[in-house]
Amino acid sequence: MESQNVTNNGTQSVQKSVRQTNLNHSRGASVFENQIKNNVSKGNFPIRVLPTVKTSYSSDSVNYRDPNVDYLLKKLFNFSNVMFDFGELEKIKFEELVDKLHKPVTRRRYLSGLRYPQIHSNKSWLQFQRNIHQTALYDPMETDIKNLLHDITKQRIVRTKLKSGGTQIKLLISFQNGGSALFKPMRFAREVETIPDHYYFSDYERHHAEIAAFHLDWVMGFYRVPPTAGRTINMTSEILNVAEKKLRRKFFKSPVGNLCFYGDCEYYCDAEHAICGKPDLIEGSFATFLPSLDEADRVSWLNPWRRSYSKYKKASWETNSDYCEGVKQEAIYKNNRRLVELIDMHIFDFLIGNMDRHHYQTYSEFGNNTFYVHYDNGRGFGKTKHDELSILAPLYQCCQLSYETFLKLVKLYTGPRRLSDIMRRSLAKDSLNPILTESHLFALDRRVIKILKEVNKCIRKGNHIRDVIIHKHFE
Amino acid sequence: MESQNVTNNGTQSVQKSVRQTNLNHSRGASVFENQIKNNVSKGNFPIRVLPTVKTSYSSDSVNYRDPNVDYLLKKLFNFSNVMFDFGELEKIKFEELVDKLHKPVTRRRYLSGLRYPQIHSNKSWLQFQRNIHQTALYDPMETDIKNLLHDITKQRIVRTKLKSGGTQIKLLISFQNGGSALFKPMRFAREVETIPDHYYFSDYERHHAEIAAFHLDWVMGFYRVPPTAGRTINMTSEILNVAEKKLRRKFFKSPVGNLCFYGDCEYYCDAEHAICGKPDLIEGSFATFLPSLDEADRVSWLNPWRRSYSKYKKASWETNSDYCEGVKQEAIYKNNRRLVELIDMHIFDFLIGNMDRHHYQTYSEFGNNTFYVHYDNGRGFGKTKHDELSILAPLYQCCQLSYETFLKLVKLYTGPRRLSDIMRRSLAKDSLNPILTESHLFALDRRVIKILKEVNKCIRKGNHIRDVIIHKHFE
Repeated sequence: MESQNVTNNGTQSVQKSVRQTNLNHSRGASVFENQIKNNVSKGNFPIRVLPTVKTSYSSDSVNYRDPNVDYLLKKLFNFSNVMFDFGELEKIKFEELVDKLHKPVTRRRYLSGLRYPQIHSNKSWLQFQRNIHQTALYDPMETDIKNLLHDITKQRIVRTKLKSGGTQIKLLISFQNGGSALFKPMRFAREVETIPDHYYFSDYERHHAEIAAFHLDWVMGFYRVPPTAGRTINMTSEILNVAEKKLRRKFFKSPVGNLCFYGDCEYYCDAEHAICGKPDLIEGSFATFLPSLDEADRVSWLNPWRRSYSKYKKASWETNSDYCEGVKQEAIYKNNRRLVELIDMHIFDFLIGNMDRHHYQTYSEFGNNTFYVHYDNGRGFGKTKHDELSILAPLYQCCQLSYETFLKLVKLYTGPRRLSDIMRRSLAKDSLNPILTESHLFALDRRVIKILKEVNKCIRKGNHIRDVIIHKHFE
Repeated sequence: MESQNVTNNGTQSVQKSVRQTNLNHSRGASVFENQIKNNVSKGNFPIRVLPTVKTSYSSDSVNYRDPNVDYLLKKLFNFSNVMFDFGELEKIKFEELVDKLHKPVTRRRYLSGLRYPQIHSNKSWLQFQRNIHQTALYDPMETDIKNLLHDITKQRIVRTKLKSGGTQIKLLISFQNGGSALFKPMRFAREVETIPDHYYFSDYERHHAEIAAFHLDWVMGFYRVPPTAGRTINMTSEILNVAEKKLRRKFFKSPVGNLCFYGDCEYYCDAEHAICGKPDLIEGSFATFLPSLDEADRVSWLNPWRRSYSKYKKASWETNSDYCEGVKQEAIYKNNRRLVELIDMHIFDFLIGNMDRHHYQTYSEFGNNTFYVHYDNGRGFGKTKHDELSILAPLYQCCQLSYETFLKLVKLYTGPRRLSDIMRRSLAKDSLNPILTESHLFALDRRVIKILKEVNKCIRKGNHIRDVIIHKHFE
């Protein structure tokens, strides 16, 4: 079975238990409820209080324990050591937890309008498109992600085109096997941080942020970011020689003999901001194409917590602390999973430091109970020392998050392997590794703690635990 | 006498001898001819061959001797130890040499259309404007440059305005004493180098290049760059609060709380390239205003050795090695000092590394025999490791330069004080010192040698010494 090779660090035996868990899960039970109910001795808080771990990277070292978070965990365990079975959490690996929590696979719906739904082809991009379903963009047990990423980095490029209309430069890439990808070229070295005086809407896009965001989404078991890989290409043979006329005319040689091109977009697209190779080699991120809109239409939703995109104005949610009450009353966020999905999206954006999520998209035919596609993450990973707490506004204003996401964050908090460890290992699979600097990796660990502290505040404010950490499945 | 305080490192006694020398000079004699004729024993080459000097800045160390240049100097000395009295050159200081060589002050013509020519005011900017004369923008013996620079950095700012129409951001500054200056704000730290893939016309302007160019022009005794000083100002009280409406509307607060503004120009003028203070302090260069064009009209001349300003095309002089022959035939470059002035300008631009001299200006009423105003030097000092030899094209294509400039370069070559030493000392007077990094200072020494090597090539090609190193005065 092709799909058995592809779980993220999982083994075949683990996969079997995942299937079982998913089935249990789909019947509405807590992950652990059916499985471990009787193994836990009530009232005996199982998480070892580890000493502060100082890593060898002293300037970035993170204190992995926080008294507020420890307090929260004790409180939750005392509330229900079945729902919050931290003893079990200690015993399993993070990847196993993610597999167990994976969204139910029963009653799946797939995209119905794809052009080649019947072709028995093992082309990775076709397989990917066919496996997009109601609850996630892909399922690592169904889609051979490794194979897909391999194709992105190895397939011969047969056509390149400027993607017009965006805010920053990107190219449409067509591969020999019929697949396509969106190419964002490298502009700066990994160490370059966002210019502090730049607003989020002026920030440069980073190809390595696109790659890292895909890996984070993958390891966290969200499966909402189109598979993305890094690749070094020859600009002459792999872009210029196969470029459409409009793009070809944007090429020039720089004074030091490097090949350069510029784009056709709003920001940093003039010749002064050209992308230049060395002398014509350049790296970039390649994100798998989604099915075209005429095959599978997507609805674009305004994010209620979008920013003002102005240097002078604030958004409503920034000045109105009751903002979430209004959102909860909106039809589309009532009685379904959409609000917790939105909060998941913001938790993800907080982890990567992305403030630029003005819209989000869903697949029209999946209706209201579906996942959000998280593409366009190039403005993540711009600051290593700063955590933009306001990205968590939906979390701390609505005081809710999904039970699954919460458990994953707790596991990353209690360790022993941190999110930085898990990401470091995952990113090592990319040909352009290192993708993130150590400072960016450590920032992830710091942010995990900050999310949990916000959850603690929500509960201390008097919200009931079951209203904050909520169990709600796609229907 | 006010003007006696202001010579560049000179003493009063030196000034007296300068006056004498200038008088001799104006009668058409070589600097040394009348003065030292009988002191030199013919044929005894006087320059010590010093060992290679390794400075403590090892990576930038310059070999101060070059066999080609040494060969040239011997040849010249043998040709005429009166015209090339290197024995005398060894004995005097560089500053004394510059004073001696200073252009003749007799038969001076001043600007006739100034608005306040008769006001007996010691305002430094009025004094500066009144002393602009046919052969130089200022004469440090007549204009109190120190006082002028002091005023630029201390006078209260009463009005600020965007300078429209330029390629990069600059402001018009009005001082309480009635003077004005052109302000170029700091954009990058001193160490930031020109982006290698940027063409000269895409290069950012550097405020410290404006300051350094003024000092270089001053110490070299060219006196063609408007006096320029660095100053740190408070953007709130010294720009925003006194700004005209259009400029006021370009201000905003950055996400980290710094005050920023942007401009109204061709390059890097959008909000993405705003200039930001810390939080509202910023440094910049302030260049003394020239008299307005209705007081003293200037002619703008196309530089025959201008670049193509295209990524795809070359200029004629880049492909035609006989280019200078054509220029020499042009009426304005025939039978006067204009061609050597032009070559002086290119030598200056080579020293600062400025490729962006498409036009130059002269004062209309001074006619053809006058100096060139060298403003707009912000694209100098962008590369420490690269010497752009093509800037010397007029020198190596025409094979001529002025005797005075040549002697100054030889003195800087033979030392003991190098151009870097002289510049380091001069720049120390600016409040924003250090203005140039040590690497930029050492680049100056390296470039002095490269200019002299081009002169050597000209003579080795068979040109007569008197046709290469020429004596030609303003008339």
